[in-house]
Amino acid sequence: MTTFQQKLDQIQTQSNSLVCVGLDSDIAKLPSRFLKAEHPQFEFNKWIIDQTHDLVCAYKPNSAFYEARGAAGLIELEMTLEYLHHNYSEVITIDDAKRADIGNTNNGYVQAIFDQLGFDAVTLHPYLGQEALQPFLDRADKGCIILCRTSNPGAGEFQDLAVGKTKKPLWQTIAEQVNQTWNQHQNCLLVVGATYPQEMKVIRQLVGEMTFLVPGIGAQGGDIEAVLAVGLNSQKRGLIINSARAIIFADDPRQETQKLRDEINNFRKV
Amino acid sequence: MTTFQQKLDQIQTQSNSLVCVGLDSDIAKLPSRFLKAEHPQFEFNKWIIDQTHDLVCAYKPNSAFYEARGAAGLIELEMTLEYLHHNYSEVITIDDAKRADIGNTNNGYVQAIFDQLGFDAVTLHPYLGQEALQPFLDRADKGCIILCRTSNPGAGEFQDLAVGKTKKPLWQTIAEQVNQTWNQHQNCLLVVGATYPQEMKVIRQLVGEMTFLVPGIGAQGGDIEAVLAVGLNSQKRGLIINSARAIIFADDPRQETQKLRDEINNFRKV
Repeated sequence: MTTFQQKLDQIQTQSNSLVCVGLDSDIAKLPSRFLKAEHPQFEFNKWIIDQTHDLVCAYKPNSAFYEARGAAGLIELEMTLEYLHHNYSEVITIDDAKRADIGNTNNGYVQAIFDQLGFDAVTLHPYLGQEALQPFLDRADKGCIILCRTSNPGAGEFQDLAVGKTKKPLWQTIAEQVNQTWNQHQNCLLVVGATYPQEMKVIRQLVGEMTFLVPGIGAQGGDIEAVLAVGLNSQKRGLIINSARAIIFADDPRQETQKLRDEINNFRKV
Repeated sequence: MTTFQQKLDQIQTQSNSLVCVGLDSDIAKLPSRFLKAEHPQFEFNKWIIDQTHDLVCAYKPNSAFYEARGAAGLIELEMTLEYLHHNYSEVITIDDAKRADIGNTNNGYVQAIFDQLGFDAVTLHPYLGQEALQPFLDRADKGCIILCRTSNPGAGEFQDLAVGKTKKPLWQTIAEQVNQTWNQHQNCLLVVGATYPQEMKVIRQLVGEMTFLVPGIGAQGGDIEAVLAVGLNSQKRGLIINSARAIIFADDPRQETQKLRDEINNFRKV
């Protein structure tokens, strides 16, 4: 069995890229020429994928933009995954679905995301705890990407609360707990927003080599150099850096992807 | 505009019931006679709804059991909602989807759940804070049901952490924050598991008349009398008590629903 981390290491080495393209293919924002197609979100994704696949390590569709169209959108998400599996199977696929329910119910999501859609990894809320998330964590071949420090301006409302005797913030407690207890199959990752480099620095010190999924550059305003300065692990990797709107709705998505990859690699000196 | 709370009050009065039937229609557990149908989950739901609609205040499909079948399952969820809207529009519909993303993305979920599927309410994770959830909270006509104390055995891993100077547990802090700050449109509810009556007692004292969605009776082992003793508000309501597996997979789902409603009403003395 190839583990998620092995597959990620392979593709990040092969493509020499830490870039993830966020396929947040909001139908309201698609170029008008795609709207005539029978499957507009799929045709748009195919166009993005074909011109960027050699420059990225991962694609991350956000489930909300497909669910917004009901079953029709979900069919186009399925078509996108099939297209990736058939043509570019070495690239990592992340379902940014931010799920988490009680254990029995999570079996349904495991089936939906890992088996039905065939994603390599999924983003997960931590609030119900390890016991509830076990059906995800038990899948040693898949990546479980736990929300730790999210990229939104109001992330601190609960995430910054000082907890327990040591009064560490909640995000820090979650990072430690995932690293020390949840990660038995070495298949846990953390979401750490690019908009919070100070927190990222602390989390990197706490969790060693663990990979972070990093949203928040581009449209959300995160600074790429600040992220790299604190987020890289000892392998000069340990990051999956997502850009969505700033790439997929650019005039030249390939150029934007290449620019981001090169900017990252210049800093990494690779 | 009829608000969510007005619709809930009307149906709970009209049906004299606090019972919610959880349409957790796991295809692997459906009676075999439904598996021959073109739309097995829909046909099963229709059968459950037709025999229970006068005994309940709400139906709550858990999205995972539909997503597990991909677009095919989502189509049957859509069919179920259409059937309810057409035939029993007075009953509350809750999408147990446990969503929450950053604000821009939540617009997609709002569209999917409230507009596309037409649910009256949705369950939401609190971890990203009010700022992220504002697209849900802004919908004054819809119910926003925030996870506070979940019903699973391992719920306490983060929810029990002592927070800040007062060392209140996280679940209590979330209940207070939702009650004091998030509930500007009077459309917030809380998830409080039946398996934690001590916590429910504290939350009821904190939030006044606010309604709780209560999972965890039946298969999960929560005790109905313990819940009612601490959970009812001053109107002898304030609870939506969910039972899923114990009703829908019973030999006689109507009888089980009636039994639960009567047990609740005997305690309420109504």
